Amino acid sequence: MNETRFQPSGIITLTTDFGLRDPFVGVMKGRLLARLATASIVDLTHEVPPQAAEEAGFWLARSFEAFPQGTVHVAVVDPGVGTARAILCAEVAGHLLLAPDNGLLGAFAVKGLAPAVRALTPTAVASLGIRAVSATFHGRDIFAPVAAELAAGRCAPAALGALMSDWQRGRHDLPTLHEGSLRGRVVTIDRFGNLITNIEGAALASLARPQVRIGARVVPLHRTYGDARAGDLLALINAFGVLELAVAQGSASEQLGLGRGTVVEVRELTE
Amino acid sequence: MNETRFQPSGIITLTTDFGLRDPFVGVMKGRLLARLATASIVDLTHEVPPQAAEEAGFWLARSFEAFPQGTVHVAVVDPGVGTARAILCAEVAGHLLLAPDNGLLGAFAVKGLAPAVRALTPTAVASLGIRAVSATFHGRDIFAPVAAELAAGRCAPAALGALMSDWQRGRHDLPTLHEGSLRGRVVTIDRFGNLITNIEGAALASLARPQVRIGARVVPLHRTYGDARAGDLLALINAFGVLELAVAQGSASEQLGLGRGTVVEVRELTE
Amino acid sequence: MNETRFQPSGIITLTTDFGLRDPFVGVMKGRLLARLATASIVDLTHEVPPQAAEEAGFWLARSFEAFPQGTVHVAVVDPGVGTARAILCAEVAGHLLLAPDNGLLGAFAVKGLAPAVRALTPTAVASLGIRAVSATFHGRDIFAPVAAELAAGRCAPAALGALMSDWQRGRHDLPTLHEGSLRGRVVTIDRFGNLITNIEGAALASLARPQVRIGARVVPLHRTYGDARAGDLLALINAFGVLELAVAQGSASEQLGLGRGTVVEVRELTE
Repeated sequence: MNETRFQPSGIITLTTDFGLRDPFVGVMKGRLLARLATASIVDLTHEVPPQAAEEAGFWLARSFEAFPQGTVHVAVVDPGVGTARAILCAEVAGHLLLAPDNGLLGAFAVKGLAPAVRALTPTAVASLGIRAVSATFHGRDIFAPVAAELAAGRCAPAALGALMSDWQRGRHDLPTLHEGSLRGRVVTIDRFGNLITNIEGAALASLARPQVRIGARVVPLHRTYGDARAGDLLALINAFGVLELAVAQGSASEQLGLGRGTVVEVRELTE
Repeated sequence: MNETRFQPSGIITLTTDFGLRDPFVGVMKGRLLARLATASIVDLTHEVPPQAAEEAGFWLARSFEAFPQGTVHVAVVDPGVGTARAILCAEVAGHLLLAPDNGLLGAFAVKGLAPAVRALTPTAVASLGIRAVSATFHGRDIFAPVAAELAAGRCAPAALGALMSDWQRGRHDLPTLHEGSLRGRVVTIDRFGNLITNIEGAALASLARPQVRIGARVVPLHRTYGDARAGDLLALINAFGVLELAVAQGSASEQLGLGRGTVVEVRELTE
Repeated sequence: MNETRFQPSGIITLTTDFGLRDPFVGVMKGRLLARLATASIVDLTHEVPPQAAEEAGFWLARSFEAFPQGTVHVAVVDPGVGTARAILCAEVAGHLLLAPDNGLLGAFAVKGLAPAVRALTPTAVASLGIRAVSATFHGRDIFAPVAAELAAGRCAPAALGALMSDWQRGRHDLPTLHEGSLRGRVVTIDRFGNLITNIEGAALASLARPQVRIGARVVPLHRTYGDARAGDLLALINAFGVLELAVAQGSASEQLGLGRGTVVEVRELTE
């Protein structure tokens, strides 16, 4: 029985670390269109730092709901391409995700979205007419044709493999309150130099007078960039629901000289 | 009465300073497609220098006519996001523009295009079912859904707000001839290192023997790059109608060590 | 007689050195959509090094078959824009290519694809209603409208000009075995720092015990990146069919300090 709630919208998103300098992404789109000429393909990002699977997962889990249900999200950050690592298909809130089994999808588990995960079987892949698979570019040779078949409604997720539970969760912790303190870390830095953490706005809301600290600095919490003076450091809950450190009309990353992994703490102001 | 000449083409262009490194642009497209699945979305540029609203306006005013009438052009370079700054909808030559009220659209005023400008009212935004607006990402939460409704023909510009005249013009001067001289400046630098000025080819055409100067250098005026020898500095009227300084098969910006704001002068050669 | 086997798919790919920082690519898409609103436009790459026509050709020849037959591939790496250089239309294996006559298309000749090449005549261009052509941006003013007419099926290749044979082949050599040795070179470097050569996997297959050398180093040949330890240098036949030197989870270009043009040799291991 191939039951599924998935109703394809015809939209396919792409998240990779391929960059846009080389034709890798374009070639994936060629293979998608070869199987589904009407596909609406959207680049989510291709500038994930090389092989940073968890960072890709972070962004995808915080972005996918901007798309209509029925969207197929393809995420290829895949240092293990061509080895025995599995390829996963996960169903989450009416969306489908395709990603290598390397921790990328763990971001959906910590958000409590209860993804229904399957590993693609060789038989299922072959049954879609997928042949001549290279050892180094599964984005083109497997992910693209499978995504096109799913987006076309010609293949149901259940046909790809059995449900499984022992897939890789990676490192996707969401800090919780411990002794009046939330200790998180910078998980990504955006183009503006904003330091984006894994501390959820919802967790922070439980504090009456939250004080944000990075290293020895106390950072004032504002609602938006324009509420601080140009050049001033501020913290805010960003549009993706997590705590972010920014410099108004500047770069927090440059001004602080800090990067991924830096500890950020929020605690109740007591005195 | 919601009369408008605007007949949507279904095409939406995007101009931002979001870059393509993060999923910001992809997320905007998700929201556009969620409201208008058939939208044809084109990236004009996302690499405007952070918060350079006027540079975004310069390029948009010089590019929009490449698209068919009925196109909705969304420009989000928006350091004031979440503050009291208005969002404008302008109708120009059968196209629609959506942009913050921060000087970006002034480029259309100096080109004599007489944009019909409205500020979006909170009531109009709410009437489109736009809820849960973040303080920091109006591109996703307001610009995208409004653009989709306009491009779908489900919302007329007049429904968004009343015509107004006191919107921000910014700094978008077009030099005019003064005592036999045109004094302009470098307003942007393209990927090839070409220095692009605000001096219009049409203004230059009024000089019989125009001589181009940048600093102490006199720069020969040519028709195209290939008319100079590789490595030589040249000036030309570029495909966007303005004076540009280039190095044939090289970078003028690097060779001259000059950037935005540098004065460029054209004067009548007299002796 | 305007016979052609070309059956348009409605897909148009773009390969340029325009970058994505400026609106050049977006403006080309505007002109494409103005003539063919239903066009499905795919960016192959816009980050070819400025004016590296042969590198663009290398990638296009190794990528085009990912797209369905009937696709129009537009390649604009064009230092001679506005000079007397011709614009070519080539028919290859059911695809069409549009490119300047500067060596770019030579990559298709060495692959033995026997492109049927025509040079666009001024009469043909004018007959498509193409007017007001700038001297510096033929991508927008000629390539885009011609591609749209071809992709729309309103113009057959034969209507653009007569078949010709004396077009520029450029430097697109494929090394062949000579005294038990294949001597090639690095032709491009991808975003991961992988050094990609012009040595075909097929040529290498004729060696029983191939040994790969770059400078004084012997590089072990593997099937995929994950077969080497992180940080180790390896060689493999990549997904585009050519020999590539990589560092597992690292950058070969950075680790070796080597770039385009570096000689790579494969020879039979004899002792």
